[in-house]
Parts: sequence; C-alpha cells; structure tokens
Amino acid sequence: MFETNKGGKEMDKFYRALDNYFNDMVQMRRYLHMHPELSFQEYNTAKYIANFYKNIGIDVRTNVGGNGVVAKIKGAKPGKTVALRADFDALPIQDEKDVPYKSTVPGVMHACGHDGHTATLLHVAKVLFEHKEELSGEYIMIHQHAEEYAPGGAKSMIEDGCLENVDVIFGTHLWATEPTGKILYRSGPVMAAADRFKITILGKGGHGAHPNMTKDAIVTAAQLVVQLQQIVSRRVDPLESAVVSIGRFSAENAFNVIADKAELEGTVRTFSEEVRSQIEKEIEQVTKGVVLTNGSSYEYEFSRGYPAVVNHEEETKFLADIAKDVPGVEEVVETAPSMGGEDFAYYLQHVKGTFFFTGAKPIKEENAFPHHHPKFDIDERAMLIAAKTLLRASLQYQEVSKRRGDEKITV
Amino acid sequence: MFETNKGGKEMDKFYRALDNYFNDMVQMRRYLHMHPELSFQEYNTAKYIANFYKNIGIDVRTNVGGNGVVAKIKGAKPGKTVALRADFDALPIQDEKDVPYKSTVPGVMHACGHDGHTATLLHVAKVLFEHKEELSGEYIMIHQHAEEYAPGGAKSMIEDGCLENVDVIFGTHLWATEPTGKILYRSGPVMAAADRFKITILGKGGHGAHPNMTKDAIVTAAQLVVQLQQIVSRRVDPLESAVVSIGRFSAENAFNVIADKAELEGTVRTFSEEVRSQIEKEIEQVTKGVVLTNGSSYEYEFSRGYPAVVNHEEETKFLADIAKDVPGVEEVVETAPSMGGEDFAYYLQHVKGTFFFTGAKPIKEENAFPHHHPKFDIDERAMLIAAKTLLRASLQYQEVSKRRGDEKITV
Amino acid sequence: MFETNKGGKEMDKFYRALDNYFNDMVQMRRYLHMHPELSFQEYNTAKYIANFYKNIGIDVRTNVGGNGVVAKIKGAKPGKTVALRADFDALPIQDEKDVPYKSTVPGVMHACGHDGHTATLLHVAKVLFEHKEELSGEYIMIHQHAEEYAPGGAKSMIEDGCLENVDVIFGTHLWATEPTGKILYRSGPVMAAADRFKITILGKGGHGAHPNMTKDAIVTAAQLVVQLQQIVSRRVDPLESAVVSIGRFSAENAFNVIADKAELEGTVRTFSEEVRSQIEKEIEQVTKGVVLTNGSSYEYEFSRGYPAVVNHEEETKFLADIAKDVPGVEEVVETAPSMGGEDFAYYLQHVKGTFFFTGAKPIKEENAFPHHHPKFDIDERAMLIAAKTLLRASLQYQEVSKRRGDEKITV
Amino acid sequence: MFETNKGGKEMDKFYRALDNYFNDMVQMRRYLHMHPELSFQEYNTAKYIANFYKNIGIDVRTNVGGNGVVAKIKGAKPGKTVALRADFDALPIQDEKDVPYKSTVPGVMHACGHDGHTATLLHVAKVLFEHKEELSGEYIMIHQHAEEYAPGGAKSMIEDGCLENVDVIFGTHLWATEPTGKILYRSGPVMAAADRFKITILGKGGHGAHPNMTKDAIVTAAQLVVQLQQIVSRRVDPLESAVVSIGRFSAENAFNVIADKAELEGTVRTFSEEVRSQIEKEIEQVTKGVVLTNGSSYEYEFSRGYPAVVNHEEETKFLADIAKDVPGVEEVVETAPSMGGEDFAYYLQHVKGTFFFTGAKPIKEENAFPHHHPKFDIDERAMLIAAKTLLRASLQYQEVSKRRGDEKITV
Repeated sequence: MFETNKGGKEMDKFYRALDNYFNDMVQMRRYLHMHPELSFQEYNTAKYIANFYKNIGIDVRTNVGGNGVVAKIKGAKPGKTVALRADFDALPIQDEKDVPYKSTVPGVMHACGHDGHTATLLHVAKVLFEHKEELSGEYIMIHQHAEEYAPGGAKSMIEDGCLENVDVIFGTHLWATEPTGKILYRSGPVMAAADRFKITILGKGGHGAHPNMTKDAIVTAAQLVVQLQQIVSRRVDPLESAVVSIGRFSAENAFNVIADKAELEGTVRTFSEEVRSQIEKEIEQVTKGVVLTNGSSYEYEFSRGYPAVVNHEEETKFLADIAKDVPGVEEVVETAPSMGGEDFAYYLQHVKGTFFFTGAKPIKEENAFPHHHPKFDIDERAMLIAAKTLLRASLQYQEVSKRRGDEKITV
Repeated sequence: MFETNKGGKEMDKFYRALDNYFNDMVQMRRYLHMHPELSFQEYNTAKYIANFYKNIGIDVRTNVGGNGVVAKIKGAKPGKTVALRADFDALPIQDEKDVPYKSTVPGVMHACGHDGHTATLLHVAKVLFEHKEELSGEYIMIHQHAEEYAPGGAKSMIEDGCLENVDVIFGTHLWATEPTGKILYRSGPVMAAADRFKITILGKGGHGAHPNMTKDAIVTAAQLVVQLQQIVSRRVDPLESAVVSIGRFSAENAFNVIADKAELEGTVRTFSEEVRSQIEKEIEQVTKGVVLTNGSSYEYEFSRGYPAVVNHEEETKFLADIAKDVPGVEEVVETAPSMGGEDFAYYLQHVKGTFFFTGAKPIKEENAFPHHHPKFDIDERAMLIAAKTLLRASLQYQEVSKRRGDEKITV
Repeated sequence: MFETNKGGKEMDKFYRALDNYFNDMVQMRRYLHMHPELSFQEYNTAKYIANFYKNIGIDVRTNVGGNGVVAKIKGAKPGKTVALRADFDALPIQDEKDVPYKSTVPGVMHACGHDGHTATLLHVAKVLFEHKEELSGEYIMIHQHAEEYAPGGAKSMIEDGCLENVDVIFGTHLWATEPTGKILYRSGPVMAAADRFKITILGKGGHGAHPNMTKDAIVTAAQLVVQLQQIVSRRVDPLESAVVSIGRFSAENAFNVIADKAELEGTVRTFSEEVRSQIEKEIEQVTKGVVLTNGSSYEYEFSRGYPAVVNHEEETKFLADIAKDVPGVEEVVETAPSMGGEDFAYYLQHVKGTFFFTGAKPIKEENAFPHHHPKFDIDERAMLIAAKTLLRASLQYQEVSKRRGDEKITV
Repeated sequence: MFETNKGGKEMDKFYRALDNYFNDMVQMRRYLHMHPELSFQEYNTAKYIANFYKNIGIDVRTNVGGNGVVAKIKGAKPGKTVALRADFDALPIQDEKDVPYKSTVPGVMHACGHDGHTATLLHVAKVLFEHKEELSGEYIMIHQHAEEYAPGGAKSMIEDGCLENVDVIFGTHLWATEPTGKILYRSGPVMAAADRFKITILGKGGHGAHPNMTKDAIVTAAQLVVQLQQIVSRRVDPLESAVVSIGRFSAENAFNVIADKAELEGTVRTFSEEVRSQIEKEIEQVTKGVVLTNGSSYEYEFSRGYPAVVNHEEETKFLADIAKDVPGVEEVVETAPSMGGEDFAYYLQHVKGTFFFTGAKPIKEENAFPHHHPKFDIDERAMLIAAKTLLRASLQYQEVSKRRGDEKITV
C-alpha cells in the first residue's frame, strides 16, 4: 500500500491558491449552468474550455474523440503522468429552479453537476500551471463530452489518445444527496454497467371484437414484462446485484383494434460481466418462450452501454487516505456501490485510478433534489473541496511513487 | 307470425324500376366512395343526400340530431309507417385500393360500405316516391351520420324525432365477407354491445437503476393486462359471449426511466346487459387488486357504447320470409351473432324491426377483404339485392299488417 | 315434425299404475341411497336391478359392457324399439345429510340422483311389462353403470350391443336445482364435452436459497396456470363456449426446497368438436412456450372424456310436446346448455333421441343443494313425473311413428 | 487490530497431539455417520458425547437447552473464556453412498458434516484437557443439537447459560465444495437469515365446468407465485441480497373440481434486518392485492428462522490471520456470503466471534457432492485442519488479549 505524508504542510499554498479562485469557480459554474448543451452537441462549452486554457497560455487539444478537450501541464521535474477528468454535457430536462443562474436553454439543464466538475477542473489546472516550476511529472486535464448518453465520450477520447503515457487517473462526481464535507470512496465495482435493450413483439392485429383472429401483441408484451421479473428473482445469483427495468411500453392503437406490434425498451444494470452476459441471454430466452406461447415473433437488440466502474484497490485506498487531511473534508467513508452508470469505467480499463464522490448537498433541505431532477442544484462550496482533493491526490501521487521507487518516470 | 304473399307478382314493376336505376346507384356509390367524410364531419355527404331528395321533389329534414337527414314519402292510402335506415360516415383509414373510384381524401375511406348503403336507400326512396300514388302508409328514410364512432348518430336522431310515428324499421349492412345472393338474419342479439374503457395506472417514476425507489407503472399495467384475461376465462358464465380487448398500452419514457404512468384503453363486447355490467365491475375489481399489489393507484373510465342489436323475433322471421323471393337472393340463412357493434341497436329499443346482412363479397377472391381493411371493397350488385329486399319488406309489411287487421293506421 | 295426440286419455291407466307404485319407488330409491357403490364397482346394485327384473319375470342381460344391465319388454304388436336409460353409480363423497336413508357407506354417496333414475326406470319397466299385451313395439331398459367416471359405461354397453335394433332413446336427469313440475329440454348441444388433461412440469430442484442453480417448477407451473387463461379469453371464438379449469396443482416439497416437479390436472369443456381440438393443441402450445421461458420441460396428456350431448331436433321437439300434458308437469321450457358432461352423448351418436331434465328441487330451500354436494337430495315426487314422461314418450312414439307411416317396424 | 505471533512455534506440540488422534477422529466420525439422529431427537449422540468427556475426566453439563452438551476445561492460569461450538444433528435424507460407514438408519443421514464437527471438537477438547496445566483461561465446548431445524438448538442453549462468562466464540463448518487446505472467512454478514412463510388462499370451490360460480384458489395462488417475483426484482434495493422461494404449492382436488383452497410454503433469505422486515411486509402486500383481484381471502404466517450470521470484524481478521500458519492450510481467502442459514447467528448476537469454513472436498471428483445431497461426504483430513485452526485460535486468543492488556480476566 501507498503510505502518504500525513502532514501535508507543503499543500497549504495550493489550497490557498484554490481558495482565492473560489469566487471565479462559482461564476464559471453559474455561467455554464445558464448555457447547458446536450450530449454530443457541446460545441460552445468545448470552445469555452479551450479558450480558458488558451487565455492562460496552456496548450490544448480540441475535438479529441468528438467534442473532448485535453490540456497538458508539464512539471519541471520528472515524475508520473496523472490524469484528471471532468465531464461537461447537460441533460434534456427543463430547469425548474428559481435562481438567477437558471438555464437559459429551454428543455436543457445541467441537472447532474457537470458544470461544477468543469469549473473545478479548470481551476485545478490553473493552479497547477501557476506552480509548474515546482512540480514533478505531468498533468493531463481530460474534459470529456457526452457522459450522459451512450456510447459516451470517454471511449472515443481514449481511442483518440487522451490516456497516452498516463499512469493514473482520478475523477470525482459532485454528489448532491450527500452533505458537503463528505468524501465517498469504494474499491472494486462502484458504479454499474448500464445497458439498453429493445424488444419488439410482432403479433397479428385485428378487430378488438375478434381476439381469436389475432395474435394480440399487447397481451404478449405484457406477459413478457411480467415474466422478465423472474430473471432477477430466480436466475441471477442472489449475491449479485442486477436490475432489469422497462422504461417504455408502446402500443398505440385505437381502443378497439388489437395491436399487431408492441415495443419495449429498457435498461440492465450489473456489476459483473458474467451476470451482464447472462442477463443479455436470459432476456432473449424469456422472450422466445413468451412469443412461442402466443404464436407471435420478436426482434431483440441488446446494446451494451458503459461497463461497470471498477476502482483499483491501491489507488482507492490512497485517495481515501489523502482525502482525510484535505481542508473542508469532515468525513471519508466507504460507500455502497451505485446502480447508476458512468463512462469513467473505460479509463479504469486502461489505467489505474479511482472515481470518488464529493458530497455537495445544498444546505437548505428544500433545495436538495436528486440528480436529474428539474430542481437539481449543488452546494457550490463542494467544488472547492473537490478541487483540493484532486489537487492533493495529483501531487501526493508523485511523492508516494517516488518513495516506492517506481521505475517508470516521465521525463 | 306474419304470413306473406309468396307470389309477389305485384313487386315486379318495383324490381324493374330498381334495375333501371342500378347504373345510377353504382355511379352514386363511387362518387361517395371518392369523397368520404369522417364521423360527425359528414357535412358534404349530408348536403349531397338532401340535394338528391330536393331535386326529385321530396321534402327533407336536415341536421337531424347532427348531420342526419330524414325524408318522408307518403303513400296515397292509409297504412303503416315503415322506416329504412342507411348510415353515411367513413373511417380514418387510408384507401389502398387501385381503382378509379379510390378515395380522394388522404387517410379517410369508406371502408365499411356506408357509401353503398346510402346509394341503395336513395334509390329505394326514388322508386317509392315515383309510385307513391299506389302506396299505402308512409316511408321514412333515415340517413344516419356517425355510425362508426360512439356515441353515434342514431341516439341523437331518435331524440330529434326521427322515429316519430314509426311502426317498424328495417336496416341492412352490405357484408363483404359473404357472397352476393346471400341474406343473413338472426332473431334476438345479433351484434354485440361495444363499450370502451380507459385505465390509467399512477405509480411513482424514477431512475431505471433504482426500481425499489419507485412504483413501476409499466410492470403494474402489464400485470393488469395479464390479470384481465381471467375475467372472460373465469368470471363470465361460459355460456355467455364476452370479449375484453386492450388496444392501447402507452407508457412513453426514456428506456432508463421507470414510468410513473401507464395508460390502457380497450373495448368490451357483450350481448347480455347483465354480463356487460358485470364486466364493467370486474375490470375495476381486478385493477384495484393489481394496484394494491403494487402500491400504486388508478383512474378508470368505462364509457358505454352502443348496446347490443337485438332483433325482434316476428319482424326477423318476416324479413327472412320475404327475402326468399327477392330476385337475386339465392340463400337466406340464420347467422351467428357478431361481436361487432352497431347503433342500429337504439332504433330497435324504440320500435320493432330487424337488422340483416346482405352478402356483398367481391367476385374475385383477391379483391375480398374484411370490413375496415385498407383494401375493402364490395360487389356493387349487392346494392340492388339490398334495395329490392328493403323495398319488398316495406311494401309487404303493409299487406301483412292489413291482413292481421292491425288497428293503428296512419292516415 | 311429429304431431302428437294432445288428449292422451289412453295414458290415464298407465299414469295410475305408476301412481300406485310411487311408494315402492321411494322405498327403492332410499334403499339404493343407503347402499351406494362407486363407478365400475356397482356389483350389488347391478345384482339388485337384475333381481328386480327376474322377480317379475322379465328376461335380463347382465354384465353388459361391464356392470350394465339390459332388460327387454316386447309388446304384443309390431312397432318401434324404444330405449330408456338410467345410470346407477354413486360418487366418492361423504353423505352429510341427516336423514334416515343416509348412505351407510363411508365416503360414498348417491350425490347425483342416479338412485332416483334407477327406481324410476324399474317401475316404468314394471308398468310396461304389466301392459305388454296392449303394447306395440319393444322397450329396452338400459341400466348403465359408471356414468360419473370416464370412460364411462355407455360406450362399452353400446359396444356390447345394448342399442341393437333401437330406433330411439330417451333419458332424463333428475335436476335438483330446478323445481319439481318443470321439464327442461334443448335441441342440439345440451351438455358439454368433458375432457381431462395432465401437465407435468419437469424443472430442476435445489435449495430454496439458490434459485439460480435451479429451474423452479412451481414458478413455471404457476406461470402456466396464469397463461392458460388466455386460451379462453383470446384464442377461442367468443361466440363459442369453452372452459379450461385446473383442479389440481401439486408440488409437495419442504418449504425451503425448490421443486423439481409440479403436476397440474384439469378439465376442458366445449360444445364444438373444432374448439375441443383447438384447445387440446393450444394448451400444449402455451405449455411449450412457458417451459421454454423457464428452461424446463414437460409431459402432457389430454384424455378425451365424453363428447357433447347433442340432442336430435325432431325427437327433442316431440319430447317437449308430449311432456306438456303429463300430470304433474307445470312448465316445459327450453334450457340453456350445461357445461357439465354426460355419457348419454354416446347413445345419441348411434340413434336418434333426446336427453332432458326433470326438475327435482327439494321443497324446503334448506334441503336444496347442487349436484355432487355432500347434502344433495331430491324431491322424490319428481321420480313420478320422470316416470310418467318417459312412459308417455315411449308409448306416444309408437303412435306418431305409425301415423308418419314409418316403414321400419320391429315385428 | 489484534497482532498475532506469526511464528507459532509453541503450537507444535498441540498440532502433534492432534495428529496422533487423527485416526481416532476418523473412527469417531464414521461411527457417528453410521448412527445419525434427526434434529431434536439426538438422544444417543448427546449421550455419546457426554460419555466421551466423562471417560477422560471432564465435567460435562447435559440437556443444556434440550439435547445440548457443554463441557468446560479450565486452564491453570487466568485468561479469557473461549467457546468452541460443534453441532451434531443429522438430516431426513436417505444415505446413498456406497461406503462401509454408510448410515445404518433408513432415511436419516449426516449429510451436512456435523459428524465431522463433533469428532473434531471432541479431540480438540481432549488435547486442551491434556495440556490444561500450561493453559491460560477457560475453554467451553458447546456441542449443539438441532442446527438443521428451526428454532434450532443454539437459542435454547444460550438461554440455558452456555455462553455465561464467554469472551469469544469460534465455530467452523466443514465445507465439501471447497478443497481441503482452504480456510474461508468473511467479516460481517456471512450466512443469511432464513425465514419461513405460509400463505393459504381461501377461495370458493365448485365444479370445473362452472368457474364463474367459484373463486378459483389455484388461479389465485398461481398469480400470487408469479407476482411474488417482483418483490426481489422491483422492491428490494438491488444492492441487497434477497431470495423469496416457494417450495410447496398444494391444491389437491379432483381434476374437474375447482379448488377452494391452495397452500403455499416458502423461505425468505436476507442479510439485512431491514430487508427482512420489508419482505415480510411485501409478501403480505402482494397477497392482499392478489386476493382482492380474485375476490378471495388469505391467511399468512411468517415465521422468523435464524437471523443472519454476522461475524465480528476484529475476531474474523484474527482468525484469518492465525489460520495462515496452521499446518495443512494452503490458502486463506475471503468468501462471498452464503444464502444458507445457521443458528451460529445467535451466539454472535451475544458474544464476539467468527464462523468460518474449512475446505473438505473429497479428493475424487466423483465423490464430491453438495451439502444435503444423498451422496454427500467429506475429505476427513479436513477435520484435522479444522481442529488445528480452532485450537490455535483458542490459544492465540489468550496471547493477543494479554498483549492488548484487556482488563477483564477470568481467574
């Protein structure tokens, strides 16, 4: 295990630098909040990010795997290459908050805190850059587009080289359901694989008065929804977590016409690859049986979304360890995994690292809403805690690597 | 029972008159076929019908209970008042036939033969009118709008007086699945009561990854569809006919969002009022149980559509009897009841009468499609048979009434 | 149609003869009630019947197709051969009545009135025999064993010749849910085909804590029961009557052991051969789909029981007609068909005839229970009405046949 | 955390003593294997155990909370009181192995290894007793009856004082599905709470031909089985493990009789008390809804079985730590929890301790069967490993307690 320098005195000036930028961070986050862009359409946000770097004199790669932006800050001394990631897309939700920084785009909203992630990382970058002469190693700022919508931006950014030479990656999610001051970590699977499936039942339509002349697609699809429940209840190892949810059931006919077609769309959440593949097959197995029962046929698509986010053990313990001394952090706790998905998963398939949660619950209970809610907001002070934690992790990582005598050193 | 004059020699001139108009009848039916209008929007068709009467000098009431048109032809001698009914609305179906008289209105089509009913009745009226000096009694031509869409036109036309002083009513449906030359009759229930219901399941939405935080409306509604099957299979007396069909299942959400609401719409078909009321209650009973199971709630509307068409025994036997001698009729058979609905039902709740089917299957098998099909068509020769049968029924009814010495006579 | 002699004066002496035997009839019925025997085990009852005939000097064939007994009474004059049938087996039900003639056999009971059928027919035979010198034609008394349990006694008795030379057959069922004085008839299908099926679900057992290691046979069979509902609700023509009921669901394991096997047994009731065959196939189709869904397998047996009882039209009208004048008969009504089964069906596949119901509801409402109930009883006066109706039908049939000039005459 | 003496040289003589008794241990286990007794009927086994102690001069308490036996060995020096537990009941399974030590009792078998547990613990006791002059603290041997059948023996033995003054408890299960040489441990929940429920559906019976006159209990219960699937699939937090299995579905009627009653029995497995209570309520909620749907009623019993076995963190780490150096142990691994139940759970509610698994898979793959299988057997060498591990844990525990300066000391 890594052993960290508990004192952390040398961090103080960095913390102070971030403190000084806190006001800017808030202004930036609010600007982004007012100008959200949907996944894969974040042209202006990408430009905004790139301009920030250019303005302070940092080289930046744009259009990395899409709208992604990658900036590199090179320390004066040799060391490890540490990547930090923030996503920047918004959601197709109408902002219902009554605040001055409310979204100005109808039906689009930063309802998941990516605006805060971006403001946080840009200021971490700024502080790192301002101290680059004293730093060891390199720092890669990965501003990722399209986290909210599969296939996501992470995969294409990696394919476009954003992880080249990277030794470790850290990322955090501002978490509006946990109080500010809390850091939540977990080794191993921490966010679920999130897949999508679509089943079309093809029956035979007809007049509502003559069911015997038809193959009723609504009855078939309804049976299917009921039978699919047994995948989780009977077929999946009860020690494994799995969810099969159907979000859409669509069979739009006149009330007196028996449907020839019904469409189901749903999501599957798992942590284990084995269970994931099992469920992909089981859904088809149940569907086959149900259509055989009903004399109808089916079409089935299973689209794999993000894999599970699997944090690396050593890096997670390291992060949990260094987080304890970060100013503002009051509690560092192991969290249960979440059934939600995140394409941070892909980075961790390529390099070591960890993804953690930074408590960001609004102070007034009446302002606290879950992620993706039309009234979602964050306690902006959490950005400062996130920034300090990411910054400390980046710098401390150089220390512990040196102490461990790691051989690979970026020159 | 009525006893009819088997010879029917005196009918010959009427038959010949209709024969002479057959070409006009076909032209008129094709014109109407090209200019269909949806239920409750049949303004031009109503005007067309009214004009026909005006042109030949018959008084006509328009806007009877809506777009309905009623014409009266008074014979020179006293007698019974006989009503004949033809409906004239079309359906929201795209005509897919490749014929010169194809519908000119996109998405609207005479796919049930009401164009033929109208052409038939108008020419029956013309012939009656031309012979009015020799006729006993009165003849009421009921041109009914909106048969296809509940609440239908019959009810409001009756309320607006169309059955005043009427002694008996006859109506027929051109029936494209039975060969031309066939007349089908049935005493008692012959077409089903056709009701409509809507159930809204109100659950609690949420993220697809967290079913336990929700009340999944799709799962609840799917269970409901499955459980509703037992109403017919377990609860209705097996000696009774009943259908409960769901035509619409609508829960449109993102694939990864658990639905807070699902809507079902369906139809109920019955012949007995007791079973009809039972099913109305049973649907709610099943719904109550299913939402209790799922911790959700519901809204339920049951809208009674047309009641069952219940033919009067004596008038049905009379019709079956006189039909045998009508030229062109090759077979008069008792038919099984149909689960379809018809608002002719209302007329029979007020006056005696019968509703029968006139075979009208296109000669070439490849042109024969069920009613409401986008390629629906009729064998136009069936209109002549329908016209002759209706005309003979009207005239013969005067005879048998006289012979029976009925007291009530219209002067 | 037959035309009957409405007066029936010549019947009076026969009626009087039966009246005189009414007390004997009651005694005999009570004796039989106290000594019931299960289907196919009616050795003593058969002997009792045979002895009755021998004692009054009538030739009797025993062991006809099993425990069946057939007696022949030949009139002095030529005429038709009329068969009358009464069944004589009892049921595996514990008699719970508090009457002096309560069953003396534990767990066995005449809970369907066959004791009454037997007492009735034996006294009809006695009266016929006592008047044989004045009678035309022949009279075959068919005392049938094993009506309650498929394959029943009728089939084997017919194979053993009980219908040889028979022209017509009449049979009645004392009907404890209809008042004494009522005769119920129906042309065409009057009792349903009653079939039996058994489905065994073969899954894979295991520990209740590890469903994923098993194929849960109980869950599979439960799904099957639910899905079978749709055969009647969706697949059978709603104008046809059909019932699919499961009476046995057996999976007996420890509470914490997942079942490897579940057995279902049920009955199918239909009137139409087409629907009967359809349901036989549909049950297997649904089963196939459900086991495919669950990865298990199945065994399926469908055992055809009695076919539908289909009364012949002319004979039924005849019976209804002559019944009107029978002393004690207050009402002769057409009945709805019954979903129950009867192996009288087989006789009607071979010869003309009709099966009717004789109201026999106990006078006190508190003694009136449905057939097969542990407290079932009859109003014994109904036996006299049944006897008179059967006797009149037999004699009158000779008359109408003569009048019609039927050629075939038994000499 | 405890820190243990890695060397363990001082253990050698104890290990050698156990080695010398290995042959006796095997003989004893085989004797017990041949003479199994069912839970709560283990009279002879209890006597056998008590006699063993008496023979070597150890005081023993019998009939502790039933057939339980408790022996105490007091070391010469003050120290902690360590309890070791072995269960000794057998199962209602027919032994199908072909070995000389096959069960001699028809239908009863040591199919879970409790014979091995007993032989192991008795020889650990013997060795401890032989060295009592050099030992610190006290050692309580808990021979528990009735582990296999709730309410189990643990609860009543505790109530009868078997844990008095006990500081820590260790127990192991020989585990036939893991290879010999493997020790499996886990902190926190390691075996599930195992509850039992029974649901009786009370409908209304009747003739299979008349479902509409009944409330079909089989259809209702089948729907219930299907609907219960959604408790695990939709209602329980997917991050929690839970099983709801139904082992018995009983509705025994004639095939043509609709059931008035159906009985379901099943088991619920959970690790969290909250989920356990939730499921108890959810089952009733689903049942209420299903009977409301069907117009029937229900009875519901939920009998709590053993709670979850929740190992104490410090003691589990200690055990895992000391196990590494035990001769014969090749691998010490963290295990996933098991959905199986164990009444060791109760001991851990009262005192600190841990329950671990000792790999005991038969060497030949063809002899390896899961627990409770009719051919279940163990690799008897595992007993020696279990004995050495329990013994080292007991002695080492005194050491670490002293080093930690625990205040409470048994004198």
